[in-house]
Amino acid sequence: MATPLLDAIDSPDDLKGLSDRELEQLAEEVREVIISVIVERGGHLASNLGVVELTIALHRAFDSPRDSLVWDTTNQMYTHKLITGRRAEFESIRLEGGLSGFGERGESPHDTLSAGHAGTGLSIALGLAAGAANREEDSWTVAIVGDGAMTSGSSFEALNNIAHLNPDRFIIVLNDNGMSISENIGFLTNWRKRVITHPEFNAMVDRMRSLSQRMPTGELLYRIVKRFNTGLAGLIIPTMFWKEMGFEYLGPIDGHDLEQLDLTIRQARNPTGTVPVVHVVTHKGHGYEPAESNPVQFHQPSSPLGAGTGAPTYSKVFAQTLARVMGEDPSVVGISAAMLEGTGLAEIRDEFPTRIFDVGIAEQHAVSMAAGMAAGGLSPFVSIYSTFLQRAFDQIAHDICLQDLPVTLIADRAGIVGEDGKTHHGAFDISYLRCLPNTVIAAPMDENELQHLVYTAYRHDGPFAIRIPRGAAVGAPLDDELRELPIGRGSLLREGSDVVLVAVGKAVQAAIEAADVLAEEGISCGIVNPLFVKPLDVDLLVEQARRTGRVVTVEENVLAGGFGSAVLETFADAGLSEVLVHRVGMPDAFVEHGTAAAQRHRLQLDAEGIAQQVRSAFFAAEAGTPA
Amino acid sequence: MATPLLDAIDSPDDLKGLSDRELEQLAEEVREVIISVIVERGGHLASNLGVVELTIALHRAFDSPRDSLVWDTTNQMYTHKLITGRRAEFESIRLEGGLSGFGERGESPHDTLSAGHAGTGLSIALGLAAGAANREEDSWTVAIVGDGAMTSGSSFEALNNIAHLNPDRFIIVLNDNGMSISENIGFLTNWRKRVITHPEFNAMVDRMRSLSQRMPTGELLYRIVKRFNTGLAGLIIPTMFWKEMGFEYLGPIDGHDLEQLDLTIRQARNPTGTVPVVHVVTHKGHGYEPAESNPVQFHQPSSPLGAGTGAPTYSKVFAQTLARVMGEDPSVVGISAAMLEGTGLAEIRDEFPTRIFDVGIAEQHAVSMAAGMAAGGLSPFVSIYSTFLQRAFDQIAHDICLQDLPVTLIADRAGIVGEDGKTHHGAFDISYLRCLPNTVIAAPMDENELQHLVYTAYRHDGPFAIRIPRGAAVGAPLDDELRELPIGRGSLLREGSDVVLVAVGKAVQAAIEAADVLAEEGISCGIVNPLFVKPLDVDLLVEQARRTGRVVTVEENVLAGGFGSAVLETFADAGLSEVLVHRVGMPDAFVEHGTAAAQRHRLQLDAEGIAQQVRSAFFAAEAGTPA
Repeated sequence: MATPLLDAIDSPDDLKGLSDRELEQLAEEVREVIISVIVERGGHLASNLGVVELTIALHRAFDSPRDSLVWDTTNQMYTHKLITGRRAEFESIRLEGGLSGFGERGESPHDTLSAGHAGTGLSIALGLAAGAANREEDSWTVAIVGDGAMTSGSSFEALNNIAHLNPDRFIIVLNDNGMSISENIGFLTNWRKRVITHPEFNAMVDRMRSLSQRMPTGELLYRIVKRFNTGLAGLIIPTMFWKEMGFEYLGPIDGHDLEQLDLTIRQARNPTGTVPVVHVVTHKGHGYEPAESNPVQFHQPSSPLGAGTGAPTYSKVFAQTLARVMGEDPSVVGISAAMLEGTGLAEIRDEFPTRIFDVGIAEQHAVSMAAGMAAGGLSPFVSIYSTFLQRAFDQIAHDICLQDLPVTLIADRAGIVGEDGKTHHGAFDISYLRCLPNTVIAAPMDENELQHLVYTAYRHDGPFAIRIPRGAAVGAPLDDELRELPIGRGSLLREGSDVVLVAVGKAVQAAIEAADVLAEEGISCGIVNPLFVKPLDVDLLVEQARRTGRVVTVEENVLAGGFGSAVLETFADAGLSEVLVHRVGMPDAFVEHGTAAAQRHRLQLDAEGIAQQVRSAFFAAEAGTPA
Repeated sequence: MATPLLDAIDSPDDLKGLSDRELEQLAEEVREVIISVIVERGGHLASNLGVVELTIALHRAFDSPRDSLVWDTTNQMYTHKLITGRRAEFESIRLEGGLSGFGERGESPHDTLSAGHAGTGLSIALGLAAGAANREEDSWTVAIVGDGAMTSGSSFEALNNIAHLNPDRFIIVLNDNGMSISENIGFLTNWRKRVITHPEFNAMVDRMRSLSQRMPTGELLYRIVKRFNTGLAGLIIPTMFWKEMGFEYLGPIDGHDLEQLDLTIRQARNPTGTVPVVHVVTHKGHGYEPAESNPVQFHQPSSPLGAGTGAPTYSKVFAQTLARVMGEDPSVVGISAAMLEGTGLAEIRDEFPTRIFDVGIAEQHAVSMAAGMAAGGLSPFVSIYSTFLQRAFDQIAHDICLQDLPVTLIADRAGIVGEDGKTHHGAFDISYLRCLPNTVIAAPMDENELQHLVYTAYRHDGPFAIRIPRGAAVGAPLDDELRELPIGRGSLLREGSDVVLVAVGKAVQAAIEAADVLAEEGISCGIVNPLFVKPLDVDLLVEQARRTGRVVTVEENVLAGGFGSAVLETFADAGLSEVLVHRVGMPDAFVEHGTAAAQRHRLQLDAEGIAQQVRSAFFAAEAGTPA
């Protein structure tokens, strides 16, 4: 596929000489490159196809990097990357050593932030604007925020402060594609619904149609208006909301019409003494029919979840088990935060339409609401990716643990996650959950343990966290009956005389393989699956430590304050000073993107790496391997 | 003082037989009890005086505990406690073993939650309502939220979800006292300002006056209207805001007029298919002149901060040092979240009016904005109480550490805090910060170290956290020149041969005293002040551990993943298996209220307790003391 115009763009400056026709062709070329790379590779396809024209328009109107373009969440920056000098490397995106799928300050001065969590962009932009104001620079700051990220409390906190500080040369672009990752929740959606059901709706559509037919992009605008999921609501309702918040509202405009975009951005640059909000209606997957008609599936296509073993994902096993428990007890409910698909809950929502809650990108609320539910007699299960659960750390401490309420947290995608890279690893949950009183924390080694843990959590009268990894489980057969497991009891999977490997969760399988490798070299490894990170099976650990004198802990969490640290604490408290402990885990650094396998290899978290660490910690001389 | 009516109230049921006149007298009695106890004792005086009538009205209108009254933040529940059977114990409030100053589920079935962080009430209430709906109960849920807590992102997330779910028998009471702890920030305040400066403002005031003179409480309403800080804005503006969010707006009403309250709550109970928001204008400190005229000072009077040593507080020394650095470098800025007074920043705001930022109760935004500022060339210092900084854990990880930006976090009130009790201790910050890559974490043993650390953080090009305790510093003389301290370098304060005490931050002084006690018993204690929790001074620690073979770590943080755990990790990594380590710190439990001294004594964190722990860990036989 030839992309002559795009190939000639080395920086946003090169956009400025292009004619309207050429810009439209450029948009086509960008779209083709994104589709061809991402459909095969995996990545955020639909959202990126939605902002091609918007990105081009912004880069024409502003002078990046002197002006700051801040893309909230940063997973929709593919066009931005393509026109800021990264065309040649684009095919490496999300690969080991290649471009990041997100904004990356280290990649380009045009990337104002490295981010992957929604709802931080407005705050970051306000900070950047404060920096420019402090230096009395007349540069612009533009924050581009999706309607999904607007449901996040951090966005609201930022809006509130922006209204208060009212910075100069600051523009908010609301990229309204009518949908966050699964479905937009709350008042923005309600606005749409109210408009659709309003008695004047049809008359308005007719007026819109007649108006739009007299405009160059009329047909498109009309098509957009007709869609339930995109924007007519914007035409009448949010005006007051934004004005009352203290902003100047401009829009809504068709986000695929470069001329409208140009015109409105120019209008937004007129100083009025009030920060403008430019409401841009875009269409996820625009220009690619499969993604247009199924944007949820094409949010991140070709994700290698579940590939390989043929086993179900941990998420799916969790959801299926939850459904089983929900079928038996009407007080059990499931909650997620804009991640019903990823957590498996979408599959059981039809069965329990009133008992599966999607709160939007609002992890804090998800956790506090679960606390209220538990106080009100329900048995809530909250499934959130480990990295996003960080958002609710205070709510876990203050609303669940302090009140010792029976809420179960599923920290999904715990440990290494692969292509999404450093913003998405679940690297800290053991450390940040373990310090909180009243918590039980467990990590299953396979899907059969997971189903019993879900049941055990349901039976437990207090906070309970289960961390599960991304992707396919190991293919263990599922017991027919759900069983309550004894809390704080681990198991000895294999006897060994030289060293004992104590591995948690997903790391158990790698430890078993490492032990096999080491056995061939004459090193006898015991293997303990503690199952519980808190409380630990102190008796089993102490006994095994005494037996071998050498312990290796293995976890997919950072070492600082992690599982290995808990083992050290246990041994110190038991006065076990003579035991040598080597800890294997994630480093004190943010782990770059790549495939999960490549990351595990690089970090010595695969079987080979674990074996190597065991050797060099304790058996360098004996095994003849240099440390 | 006689309080005959209040003394006869054993439960809210007893309110229902009282006449209007008696209710007014009851309010007077409640007010007198609160004033007499709290002015002497310390506590949240002004906010509690503001909700006397509101609390009485709610308890008359609803049937607690069958109906759930959820008070956001719960520090304004004194009236609630007095009329739900706790009159006799009220004088024990905030004392060791006495009533909590906050809501406390363990105290009474009328307390729906134990909370102390703002912005959780709406979520908890929605959860409780979901529980009632699940059981098909027709009970009511009422969330009472201050305007300050409304600036918190978690409240917005909850509002959004409430609008979406639209629960039955659910009422939101917006307790608008025109001010959060220091000053309301953002759009609610802006509404007021716009109204005050509106050309029609005076005409409206006249209309209000004439209207209100024909009403029984007219004069009061007029007085309220005249005040800048309270409510006329509510009369015209928020209506649309709430309606657009999807709520039914009722108000504003005079929160000190029992009849108006009664009437409006009755109206709110009429089913309209939409959740009502009852906007109640109250007046902080109502009925107590000193608190009315200075509600900020009387937010929490008689707080024993700074008492005792005569030394300045750590907060003050931080702020004064920051002012010095700000005077030399215009790129340095200070940020807090509705805590300018508590963090000392209020004292330097006049000197730097454009460079001290109060973002409201919005810790997430404070931290992300600081990241943006740092990316934009500024040098931000963010001072937030340790317990509230938990709210921003994800932003610290994702916006500061991941991007390795030079932001300094001051975790104020770290460790034991005293009377505010279990929701307010800074018990976890070492654990939750230490696990994040790129962090430097330091804790000064006195105010002189603190001032040098502030300067060191300013000079450091990356994330830097300084944890400081509540209250007065130790009285160390301040060096004239600010000095850059070597990062990761601790100091040996005292040589010892039997054991080395490695104490961090405030615990250093207690450790020194403990060492003095033990010296008299013939136990020779070395003392190390590591100064840095991360990176640790590995050489010094390993050397001292080898010398004595016995190490005691002392910290005011939970033991799980805390400072002692970092020392264990260091020793394990150094292969130092022969050293015995005993860790002294906060327990794996939430610490109840009382004076800080009593708490330290109870937890064996004072000199005596530390000495006892050293003895029983290592010298029980020698010192003849039973372990």
